[in-house]
Amino acid sequence: MEERGHNGGAATWPYRYSRRATQLRRSLMRELIGLTARPDIISFAGGLPAPDLLPIAEIHDCMEAVLARDGARALQYGPPYAPLKEALVEHMARLGVRTRPEEVFITTGAQQALDVLFRLLVDRGTSAALEETVYTGISQSLISQGARLLTVPTSLQTGIDVEGVERHFQASPRPHLLAVVPDFHNPLGVSLSVDKRERLVELGRRYNVPIIEDNPYSLLCYQGRPLPALKSLDETGGVIFVGSFSKLLAPALRLGWIVAPAPLLQKLAVVKETADLETSALTQRVVAEFYRRGLMEPHLERLRQAYGQRLAAMQAALAREMPPTIRWSTPAGGIFLWLCLPEGSDTLALLRQAVETERVAFIPGAAFSTDGHSANAMRLNFSNASPAQIDEGIIRLARAIKRSIGLT
Amino acid sequence: MEERGHNGGAATWPYRYSRRATQLRRSLMRELIGLTARPDIISFAGGLPAPDLLPIAEIHDCMEAVLARDGARALQYGPPYAPLKEALVEHMARLGVRTRPEEVFITTGAQQALDVLFRLLVDRGTSAALEETVYTGISQSLISQGARLLTVPTSLQTGIDVEGVERHFQASPRPHLLAVVPDFHNPLGVSLSVDKRERLVELGRRYNVPIIEDNPYSLLCYQGRPLPALKSLDETGGVIFVGSFSKLLAPALRLGWIVAPAPLLQKLAVVKETADLETSALTQRVVAEFYRRGLMEPHLERLRQAYGQRLAAMQAALAREMPPTIRWSTPAGGIFLWLCLPEGSDTLALLRQAVETERVAFIPGAAFSTDGHSANAMRLNFSNASPAQIDEGIIRLARAIKRSIGLT
Repeated sequence: MEERGHNGGAATWPYRYSRRATQLRRSLMRELIGLTARPDIISFAGGLPAPDLLPIAEIHDCMEAVLARDGARALQYGPPYAPLKEALVEHMARLGVRTRPEEVFITTGAQQALDVLFRLLVDRGTSAALEETVYTGISQSLISQGARLLTVPTSLQTGIDVEGVERHFQASPRPHLLAVVPDFHNPLGVSLSVDKRERLVELGRRYNVPIIEDNPYSLLCYQGRPLPALKSLDETGGVIFVGSFSKLLAPALRLGWIVAPAPLLQKLAVVKETADLETSALTQRVVAEFYRRGLMEPHLERLRQAYGQRLAAMQAALAREMPPTIRWSTPAGGIFLWLCLPEGSDTLALLRQAVETERVAFIPGAAFSTDGHSANAMRLNFSNASPAQIDEGIIRLARAIKRSIGLT
Repeated sequence: MEERGHNGGAATWPYRYSRRATQLRRSLMRELIGLTARPDIISFAGGLPAPDLLPIAEIHDCMEAVLARDGARALQYGPPYAPLKEALVEHMARLGVRTRPEEVFITTGAQQALDVLFRLLVDRGTSAALEETVYTGISQSLISQGARLLTVPTSLQTGIDVEGVERHFQASPRPHLLAVVPDFHNPLGVSLSVDKRERLVELGRRYNVPIIEDNPYSLLCYQGRPLPALKSLDETGGVIFVGSFSKLLAPALRLGWIVAPAPLLQKLAVVKETADLETSALTQRVVAEFYRRGLMEPHLERLRQAYGQRLAAMQAALAREMPPTIRWSTPAGGIFLWLCLPEGSDTLALLRQAVETERVAFIPGAAFSTDGHSANAMRLNFSNASPAQIDEGIIRLARAIKRSIGLT
């Protein structure tokens, strides 16, 4: 019942919503993350960094130093912060990418990077190629631009199918872009071989289709060294790299970046202006200070140590607890692995049961598909929970799975 | 020349850009703000808060308290921060708006608020009504959604023409929304009378056209009390209020908000997710803490005192220095006034001369029009410069104007 004089208005005001908005669905993933936030639940659902590894004291100190040194300039409107771009040029060099500050573009998180790129490159009705099992931030933003989605078969063992990409590139009209997560794929955990990377970059060049390389995890590598970024293999400017500080540093900084040819970034600047005017001068300065103090490399090393242990804990528990019909991916980095139940299983139904009876949570595989496949799979995050919680959580999950496939 | 092995790529990679992006123009305003940032220039160009009034120490203390109290939660992903929504319910009550937390929506600045609302409500080819002299963040974002713009005559004395609005509302198909800045208009400085506000809200209700009330300045009121927000006159839910902390607190917090019916906000949440996932948990907590400590009202009172003096300084200098053919608005608040040269004058040409010979800057009126009118006008900001700088700046501006209209 409305109280007297309330200005919220009736729930029935006849708003007309845009086609692009009505085609979006509430992210199943983000809804489930809400449902599974109860403190008694061990959640493998989110994509959250470990709370105990967030560099709170260091960020505090950088914030304090920035406010003391830059004063009002740190709280005011301002252009993209040049020292952060310079730090990112060095950062990219560690991924094998040789670039320059004018080819670096700061965004309000990597999701905004993807969204403004799609706004720049996609019109309603034009097509975009993407992995059939895909991070929903890519597929939803493309849908909101009215893109027609061309899905490419993507395997748990080897990632995106290069022949499938080429078939789409040969179509007429050809797609306006390919979006791909080459390293420690979200949600599959798979990384592309160097050979596949070279073939993808070559295909983009041959068919003039730009490749959006969404690469938030490649420095979170726990075995061997990071594989070369697609952008490092690019000599013509057709690869656009998207990076994120959410996993490397802290999500609440809301900072991401793009590496792309300068002429494209000049056009992108106008699109970003309409999206949110500019990115925070404060958080840009804080992260630049974090680099300046040499804190990034030791912090990443701490993350690699801890997340590598958590991944090992999850894999050991899975090997010990799961029945033989269950398969899972063995990523060398990142924060996710993918687990498959026998064909015909329904992990959305399983989730409700697992939360209620075992107090353990995950994201059902169907959340990452645009056409309802992967209903028998689930994504498990191993960065957020402690090794002990991971062990206990996998015990609980195995109990729920065994019950659901009739093994108990 | 490209150095060997550089991955930036050629400037000639054949990117195809979307229609929506190519219809955008680089904001003349933001380009000029860049040109006029030289330290020897007195700039009335930007829309920047006074650097000496930014509450640096208070924001620092709130940041420190939030990190100490909330730790990892302040740096992690998280839902919109409930205590900030509750503070905004109280904030809105001071504008006469009676609302509830579930009708408050937090955004990454007010520009994002406008942009996600337009994404929700406008499709390519549908029409939107707006003031003929308009904040470019409104017009550019509407253009980027592919909206057809219906401009409404807007007077320096009384603001938007209500009869002009009704003519557009009677069109078939009727516009999908009206966007309006009722208080201390950017760039004109004018505020709508209570009568006009009531008629606008009634027209929206009668024709079922939602009204986006962009209202960043109404608490920056230097004479009398703020006029009622359009939203405070709304009893059916057809008015959507957009607020900003950029002028009230600090731009680099990148925080704005929307007040609208809850069912609309549920749909908007999905659109915002595609735009930037979520707004910073850190800055949301800092501003909630700022309210909790009772700092907002004293800070606003300081701003009102100082900006009122700056407005008075600018008006006194204009009255003293300007030749009689020059007219300007007399706002009672906000941060801008509008100055008109004789018909046929060209303030874009004047700007180049004023910057070079007098080292004073403003924004030419044409920047705020979608059809090239107001070429004889300019926007002057009075919040950023000190009263002494304002006095000197107007002396310089008057010299440049007199020279341009042949008075010296």
